[in-house]
Amino acid sequence: MDVASKILLVVLDGAADRPTFENKTPFRSASLPFLDQLAREGILGIMDVIGPGTPPGSDTAHLSLLGYSPKDVYSGRGPFEAAEVGIDVKPGDIAFRGNFATVKDGRVVDRRAGRISDTHLLAEAIRKQVHLDAEFIFKESAGHRAAFVLRGGGLSPSITDTDPHRASALLQSKPTAAGAPAEKTAKLVNDFTRQVCETLNDHPVNRKRVEAGELPANAILLRGAGAVPHLVPFEKRTGLKAAVIAATALVIGIGKLAGMDYVPTVGATGHVDSNIDGKVTNVNNALKTHSFVLLNIKGADEAGHDGDFNAKTQFLARVDTALSRLEIDESTLTVITADHTTAVGVREHSGDPVPFLVHGKGVRADQLNGFDEFFAAQGGMNRIRGIDLLPVLIDLLGKGQKFGA
Amino acid sequence: MDVASKILLVVLDGAADRPTFENKTPFRSASLPFLDQLAREGILGIMDVIGPGTPPGSDTAHLSLLGYSPKDVYSGRGPFEAAEVGIDVKPGDIAFRGNFATVKDGRVVDRRAGRISDTHLLAEAIRKQVHLDAEFIFKESAGHRAAFVLRGGGLSPSITDTDPHRASALLQSKPTAAGAPAEKTAKLVNDFTRQVCETLNDHPVNRKRVEAGELPANAILLRGAGAVPHLVPFEKRTGLKAAVIAATALVIGIGKLAGMDYVPTVGATGHVDSNIDGKVTNVNNALKTHSFVLLNIKGADEAGHDGDFNAKTQFLARVDTALSRLEIDESTLTVITADHTTAVGVREHSGDPVPFLVHGKGVRADQLNGFDEFFAAQGGMNRIRGIDLLPVLIDLLGKGQKFGA
Repeated sequence: MDVASKILLVVLDGAADRPTFENKTPFRSASLPFLDQLAREGILGIMDVIGPGTPPGSDTAHLSLLGYSPKDVYSGRGPFEAAEVGIDVKPGDIAFRGNFATVKDGRVVDRRAGRISDTHLLAEAIRKQVHLDAEFIFKESAGHRAAFVLRGGGLSPSITDTDPHRASALLQSKPTAAGAPAEKTAKLVNDFTRQVCETLNDHPVNRKRVEAGELPANAILLRGAGAVPHLVPFEKRTGLKAAVIAATALVIGIGKLAGMDYVPTVGATGHVDSNIDGKVTNVNNALKTHSFVLLNIKGADEAGHDGDFNAKTQFLARVDTALSRLEIDESTLTVITADHTTAVGVREHSGDPVPFLVHGKGVRADQLNGFDEFFAAQGGMNRIRGIDLLPVLIDLLGKGQKFGA
Repeated sequence: MDVASKILLVVLDGAADRPTFENKTPFRSASLPFLDQLAREGILGIMDVIGPGTPPGSDTAHLSLLGYSPKDVYSGRGPFEAAEVGIDVKPGDIAFRGNFATVKDGRVVDRRAGRISDTHLLAEAIRKQVHLDAEFIFKESAGHRAAFVLRGGGLSPSITDTDPHRASALLQSKPTAAGAPAEKTAKLVNDFTRQVCETLNDHPVNRKRVEAGELPANAILLRGAGAVPHLVPFEKRTGLKAAVIAATALVIGIGKLAGMDYVPTVGATGHVDSNIDGKVTNVNNALKTHSFVLLNIKGADEAGHDGDFNAKTQFLARVDTALSRLEIDESTLTVITADHTTAVGVREHSGDPVPFLVHGKGVRADQLNGFDEFFAAQGGMNRIRGIDLLPVLIDLLGKGQKFGA
């Protein structure tokens, strides 16, 4: 068959935008000679990653782009963060994202405990001294972050966060659904929260911090409760051996739960100063051993959340230069897209469709002259949904699943 | 009302493609003055006949284009082939496609019994001498082909074929679903297969064939088991009196099951040498007595399966010439499309969207300059699904089913 044999899916996190001035988005403003060249040779389109008018989370967006229906597998972000920090989560577990925080008289003084950097002794104390009526796993992560997993039957993710999200009172978790599982889970979370405070308040690490004038890390705020889904392994579903190259815990965690190989990149931070060149080198290597590579590049999202048009534009130009080092030819289907719009004027994810391009053997090239939201809206792919992207790509490899005879 | 009153749906079987060289498909390469003219006056679009990235079968595709959801009515191809050979199949019947074949020592020597041409005496013997624990209908068709139907309660299409598809051992049918119906059906199929071998082995027709050095037709291979669906008659659903003009059993059978009148065409073979002119004459006549005509023209699919770009291109040019004799004006909504892509580079059905055009009164003409996959992707209809085509056409006739007040 005369078809491509590999897929490279490049997700420029939050890179899509709305026009900010002179009807220009960062994609339209930035100098993108490499992406423009791919666009001229490929086919473009716009994509509702979740659905029209629905702002995707990075989690639900990546699930969709990998062909997992978020409606079926997603109840919260926790499971993917827990997977990333190396917890061997199992279907049925309820997993949470956690922050070490500073609490005084029941009020959250700092959600990041003064951006504490080393929490391993505190985490060890939690693991030793907290005792719940269910099995739990607690693991510290980078900086002030952590993951918490409840295991055993009769649990539910339908509970509220203990994290007040803005500095405020430490919250009690409450069930958001009727029934024993949600009540039991909320009670376990509140038990955990109380015992953590008791355990950490006088911990030597915190005593030292207070003596040094630093904020003590004396509480854990939990959020993003989710039931760990059973993701059919990506390779089993698609026949493609997959690798994920990313800096953000979430994307790495999704990849791990989908059974992908995670290829770490030194200096990849998820910020605008991230080591994109290192990621591109990793992609070039991964394409020699894998038939599907997911590359997530995160900085544009951050600039969007900051409302910084110029930073976003400059970052995209840097990304273009880095991507021009990709060793790809017609035998690789290269997809460039974003997981969502992070509009500079909104400083948040928005539901506008994202642009995408597909380059490689078999595509009906539409001969548009560049890559941005405006060209993409004229593209030969027209408008598709995120969940449809992977089947379209698999079909371009000549491996579509025929329905009928 | 100032609307068209009839619909002509022309399905160029497997005619859509991917670009093979210089970004050209057969549609783009072929000289198509008539289709180009229709395109200039009509509206274009692309269509996911089943869904994005899903390669349609010809069966599921035609069901969709006629407004029957394949997910609801399709379990296998057998029912449509059985309907075509004139078996009065009923909802609940399990129907199969069959081949007369040559089996020696349990191995399939030839799947078509030396392309035997006259099987009516053998079929008669099967009908007389085979006795099953259920009612069955067996009917010979053109050449080595036949249809087999099991009737009665407690049956299921969830069984494997006895046809090994490539010359190999004759297979035992096995249930593919749990439960008594599938087990019972597999047992009936295996009983049938065994008794057919016993009946045909020493049949005078086969003795003569062996004496003449020909392969005996001493077995029936079954495949494509499907439960006969209840298709609400097309005329009842749409108010349109419908005719089908086609060469392939499958399309004719779908038309018959939908209650359409079948208008046979002498010399219509379903191959690239088919009598397209005869079909066009039949269409012109049928449009005088019917308000919906389905015309299927098959040769391009065959050329696609053969990977023959030039044959496909030349066939499409011939089709264009033949179609230019259509007696249509603005009062007929003329639709030109394909049921699926049969990509020359893949030699199989693929899931790429097909181009379509709608010509006639009421369409918002998009003034594109020709008919092919590339123009269609810029079309005013944008991208729709196959199941949505018929409602759009019915609505253009001013007969849309209003939802609300």
